[in-house]
Amino acid sequence: MKRYRIYITAKQGIFDPAGVTAQEALANLDFAGVQSVRIGKLIELQANNDVNVEAVERMCQKLLANPIIEDFQIEEDEADL
Amino acid sequence: MKRYRIYITAKQGIFDPAGVTAQEALANLDFAGVQSVRIGKLIELQANNDVNVEAVERMCQKLLANPIIEDFQIEEDEADL
Repeated sequence: MKRYRIYITAKQGIFDPAGVTAQEALANLDFAGVQSVRIGKLIELQANNDVNVEAVERMCQKLLANPIIEDFQIEEDEADL
Repeated sequence: MKRYRIYITAKQGIFDPAGVTAQEALANLDFAGVQSVRIGKLIELQANNDVNVEAVERMCQKLLANPIIEDFQIEEDEADL
């Protein structure tokens, strides 16, 4: 079995309202010094051994990410399963 | 400035409906071989240099994560800013 971690983040310049809200909430809770919060997604995908990183990239393009406004990065987890 | 990446995932055994839906949608799109999809959060936090990892951990406990059902892992990004 293979395991992939996919990191999905809003592209630079894309407004992230959830992140701004979290940043304001942190300030209200007296956590000082936080300058920016951006909230993206972390997807953990387990698949058969014949699913390669190119297939995972196609999954991101078609479904898991929104390539118009999001960047994604795929990492194969080498840990034994 | 310091930059932290926070990885938030559902604890083992906690049902992740969004992940199950994504997995089914991948199968419907003819992506074969995917055994499980779990969707968590990736938070990128920029803060002043006096914000240490313990402070970020408190932020997770109090606001950014839900420690009842989620695990979180904090990574300091060493890249120069």
